[in-house]
Amino acid sequence: MKVYLDNAATTQLDPQVLRAMMPYLKGSFGNPMSVHQFGADALAGVDSAREQVADFLHCAPREVIFTSGATESNNLALKGIIDAYKGDILPHIIISAIEHHCVLETAQYLEKKKLAEVSYIKPDRCGIIAVKDVLASIKKNTILISLMYVNNEIGSIQPIAEIGKKLKKLKQKIYFHTDAVQAANYLNCDVQKLGVDLLSFSGHKIFGPKGVGVLYVWQGVKINKIQHGGEQEFKLRAGTHNVPGIVGLGKAVELIKKRSKKESQKIKALRDYLWLNINKKIPKVMLNGDNKNTSPHILNVSFKNIEGEGILISLDMEGVAVSTGSACSSGSLEASHVMLAISRGDHLRAHSSVRFSLSHHTKKTDINYLLKILPSIVSDLRKISPFKD
Amino acid sequence: MKVYLDNAATTQLDPQVLRAMMPYLKGSFGNPMSVHQFGADALAGVDSAREQVADFLHCAPREVIFTSGATESNNLALKGIIDAYKGDILPHIIISAIEHHCVLETAQYLEKKKLAEVSYIKPDRCGIIAVKDVLASIKKNTILISLMYVNNEIGSIQPIAEIGKKLKKLKQKIYFHTDAVQAANYLNCDVQKLGVDLLSFSGHKIFGPKGVGVLYVWQGVKINKIQHGGEQEFKLRAGTHNVPGIVGLGKAVELIKKRSKKESQKIKALRDYLWLNINKKIPKVMLNGDNKNTSPHILNVSFKNIEGEGILISLDMEGVAVSTGSACSSGSLEASHVMLAISRGDHLRAHSSVRFSLSHHTKKTDINYLLKILPSIVSDLRKISPFKD
Repeated sequence: MKVYLDNAATTQLDPQVLRAMMPYLKGSFGNPMSVHQFGADALAGVDSAREQVADFLHCAPREVIFTSGATESNNLALKGIIDAYKGDILPHIIISAIEHHCVLETAQYLEKKKLAEVSYIKPDRCGIIAVKDVLASIKKNTILISLMYVNNEIGSIQPIAEIGKKLKKLKQKIYFHTDAVQAANYLNCDVQKLGVDLLSFSGHKIFGPKGVGVLYVWQGVKINKIQHGGEQEFKLRAGTHNVPGIVGLGKAVELIKKRSKKESQKIKALRDYLWLNINKKIPKVMLNGDNKNTSPHILNVSFKNIEGEGILISLDMEGVAVSTGSACSSGSLEASHVMLAISRGDHLRAHSSVRFSLSHHTKKTDINYLLKILPSIVSDLRKISPFKD
Repeated sequence: MKVYLDNAATTQLDPQVLRAMMPYLKGSFGNPMSVHQFGADALAGVDSAREQVADFLHCAPREVIFTSGATESNNLALKGIIDAYKGDILPHIIISAIEHHCVLETAQYLEKKKLAEVSYIKPDRCGIIAVKDVLASIKKNTILISLMYVNNEIGSIQPIAEIGKKLKKLKQKIYFHTDAVQAANYLNCDVQKLGVDLLSFSGHKIFGPKGVGVLYVWQGVKINKIQHGGEQEFKLRAGTHNVPGIVGLGKAVELIKKRSKKESQKIKALRDYLWLNINKKIPKVMLNGDNKNTSPHILNVSFKNIEGEGILISLDMEGVAVSTGSACSSGSLEASHVMLAISRGDHLRAHSSVRFSLSHHTKKTDINYLLKILPSIVSDLRKISPFKD
């Protein structure tokens, strides 16, 4: 049996998305920047995808910038705004301590290069950032706040709309960016309702293609390109358009709307069912994150005294794919910064965590299969663990 | 009749490349960074493509960095080396005045930010950079020379191997980078023979996919990532791998070797036949570039007293796709910097140029069709042109 429970790492391309991409992998191969029929054909695909994304985000097509993925989008948001900043004093950025590495490392880079001062807001023990902490961190030189919508490791939903509303009431204009990579499938991404000026997401987390992402940029934002070259994407992102990828992303976004709320509720029910049964069948487990204020697709659990990595490998041998955190840092042996932040530095708990991430493809039989094999895996690993209590 | 003569802007995906990509657009959808079977499947595809590229470039797989395209590769080469530079004095970069915008604009950005000093080497009237000019520009603080292998607008081949050889003899270590985007299909890209430390190319110019490129980085190069986040690509390029794109690029590179020298000679013969007949049938034309020292696939011609744009549009109405220069700057009304450099600022000649770029798909009937319609298009446009002589 093959069970894929790592949808937060990447998702399977929807067959409808692939079908939409195919003409652009075959006959419509032109460069959208070319001033002839082959170029116009390709441009029509890009324009149409831009409208699909604009419709999804409730913004103008002109505000949709296609990139190579969310990592680039997040780099562009932070570095592009700092590069365009013209003030006399060092600009200040606020992010959370549990951002994805591509926001965290970018902020740290800007700090190291003395291009910005950065405040890192700590979450509560459930992985939620407090609105008041964000507001209290604002300084005279704050020009940007970047907070993820849904945490990629533990699924906790941040109060983006509430912060957006508060920021609108301030006299000081602070750009508000959200990394919505894990939210795009399940939560409202209407940029008006969220009150954000910038929003990132990628194709491959929403059953679209890899190698393509979006940065929504409100037209009032002063931002510079960070990848120099041609005049693509309203001069904000140089490089030949990944036309099949962009077309696929457009289709994937369209399909999000078509998936019913019922499906999302079904995923949430399966997630809750999984947690309920893990908690019932396996002693000494702990849910990481906020069991209520969570995206339906992510469940993160710590299994006391054993390494999450061990569980991952044992489950893999039985055909079940899960992860211990972000795929982007899977090469690292360090404990997750998210887990350390919510556990207040508890390395053992951080190392013992496993992320199960579901999708509309997940069936109850998949979860039952996992529940059948997991208790003995945990019990066997605990027998050989050097940690006892 | 449909005739595509804009292969320097982008090429059609080879059906064999698409076939190689399909498994990764379907079942093998994992994230290569994931530590389970789905991840391992995807990683195998990436690893295999890395070997195909290493084989093509005659380098170690470890020296192949996958990016989102040549624009990113070139940005990474220049900015990454400057970012890693630790010297006390401002570093100096040498580029040519006829580089692609993604090198030119990146160098100008580094100059503007006071991160580097830049020398721009002017070409001769055929668009060739003189080896002695490059060597004469070297200063004590020169750390990088970046020269394109084949010019994308006029096809002129630069003496990369000769410069590489001279640089190896210097006591001073200067990194040598070449943008080989237009060369990869037709010229030897053995990095040992070229004597380069870095080399860029992209998938979509070699009948591979859009949205993917390569930067070869010799293992001795001190370079920092410029896109921050995860630990992908030996920590030199963050962001989820575009697996189908990477696999496709690998296959495209493999196919280059399989295309015979004969095919390249056939393309060159068709190019020469086109120029011979344009020159015979149409008065007041001028070849831009070096008719001998040229890539087989590019022919650039100025048609006196008329706008290249006018010819492009008229040809498009007859089903023939050509261009007036780089697709990346097609949105701009400015004259090409390459044409201005080789014509010593002759705006009229620059604006009157048309680029015809061929491929192994080009047939003699295509060229004959073009030759049938082009003389009257030129003659009609000249009748309404405000310029006479």
